[in-house]
Amino acid sequence: MSEAMLRIAALNVDYGRCIDDDRLEDWPGFFTQHAHYRITTADNHARGWPAGVIHATSRAMLQDRVSATRQASVYESQRYRHVIGLPAVTELASVDPALRAWRAETGFMVARIMRDGRTELFATGRYLDRIEQHDERLAFAERIVVCDSPVIDTLLVLPL
Amino acid sequence: MSEAMLRIAALNVDYGRCIDDDRLEDWPGFFTQHAHYRITTADNHARGWPAGVIHATSRAMLQDRVSATRQASVYESQRYRHVIGLPAVTELASVDPALRAWRAETGFMVARIMRDGRTELFATGRYLDRIEQHDERLAFAERIVVCDSPVIDTLLVLPL
Amino acid sequence: MSEAMLRIAALNVDYGRCIDDDRLEDWPGFFTQHAHYRITTADNHARGWPAGVIHATSRAMLQDRVSATRQASVYESQRYRHVIGLPAVTELASVDPALRAWRAETGFMVARIMRDGRTELFATGRYLDRIEQHDERLAFAERIVVCDSPVIDTLLVLPL
Repeated sequence: MSEAMLRIAALNVDYGRCIDDDRLEDWPGFFTQHAHYRITTADNHARGWPAGVIHATSRAMLQDRVSATRQASVYESQRYRHVIGLPAVTELASVDPALRAWRAETGFMVARIMRDGRTELFATGRYLDRIEQHDERLAFAERIVVCDSPVIDTLLVLPL
Repeated sequence: MSEAMLRIAALNVDYGRCIDDDRLEDWPGFFTQHAHYRITTADNHARGWPAGVIHATSRAMLQDRVSATRQASVYESQRYRHVIGLPAVTELASVDPALRAWRAETGFMVARIMRDGRTELFATGRYLDRIEQHDERLAFAERIVVCDSPVIDTLLVLPL
Repeated sequence: MSEAMLRIAALNVDYGRCIDDDRLEDWPGFFTQHAHYRITTADNHARGWPAGVIHATSRAMLQDRVSATRQASVYESQRYRHVIGLPAVTELASVDPALRAWRAETGFMVARIMRDGRTELFATGRYLDRIEQHDERLAFAERIVVCDSPVIDTLLVLPL
């Protein structure tokens, strides 16, 4: 259990650094090929509403999003800094012992730093994940980013 | 040592999620029956003043507080998000090997998210804990929440 | 690997507590005798500019800085609270098995709490470290504090 907790914690560290270090092209590589990725609000999630501000159902869609982000003019004006807590982890039963999988839930805070130095707490929330192990590597088969705020900033250009 | 650090880190994760997920009725369950829980300021703590903004000396008092919170009108207007660091841990000597106990000290930040989306860094500080193991479970026998700010927000409705 | 990650995480916890608890005189003890310590911005770091807002090349220089801080009038008006993520760690090859060393990279957020209670997200960034083990103890041989903001607050009196 705590071995999985640490491995998933390390995965989250790498995930956050990838975004914060502006290596967005590597970001889809954290997901499985048919992964679901969604950013939504706590209110909408509690109501069971599937719609999200961002909704992707494959790694290819995430790659498209990165390309679009690189072309957005607002893009260079900001950076993010993730601080991610430790995950609460449950291993999922599997018929195939070679395919391990877990549910994880992890709180986060993201700061946004503008070009003029303004630093603000930009987003808080939790990651609801299904994580799979393929060939010793962990990847997100599902990552739902549940933001605490009912209002998601329209300047959401980088992934959370 | 690092096994205790991880177990206490996992306890803190569960503690923060319980509050942030609005499962307040579960919150007293993190404490022993005769636990002390106190929220105070760094200044008052340094002076040795025992008074706190909130001061409970049993789990039953914490349950009463949850009931009062549920009735407060201000309650639904806000949520918290905890990000809790790793604990610094010292095991306490015990005559009874079945009763293990530790001192732990852990930094935290709590964001408050209002209904209109305003998100702010609400409280920072450290947890000073005495943690006991009963039947393989860890619980707080004492949790002193030492807030860095000399001014504790009067809108402190949820526990820290 | 995850043993080193945990040891370095614990080192970072102790480092942050030392500053946040106002035990500045202990702070130089986290560094080797000839350690390099530098605070710089992400922009300057990316350009390879060596200059930093603060730049020390020995533990003695860090001790001098602490003495100067203790004499600064602005000093008592603020406290910090560090929340430090988990490190991404790479062990460095060494000819001497008794001298282990690692590179580590770790995200952080620091809040500043003023005497009147104002709490703000003061600095975010990452630590780029070279860490050495001497006599079972870990110490920073190099710590570059890369702040995300291009503007480093002129009120930077405490170390990051």
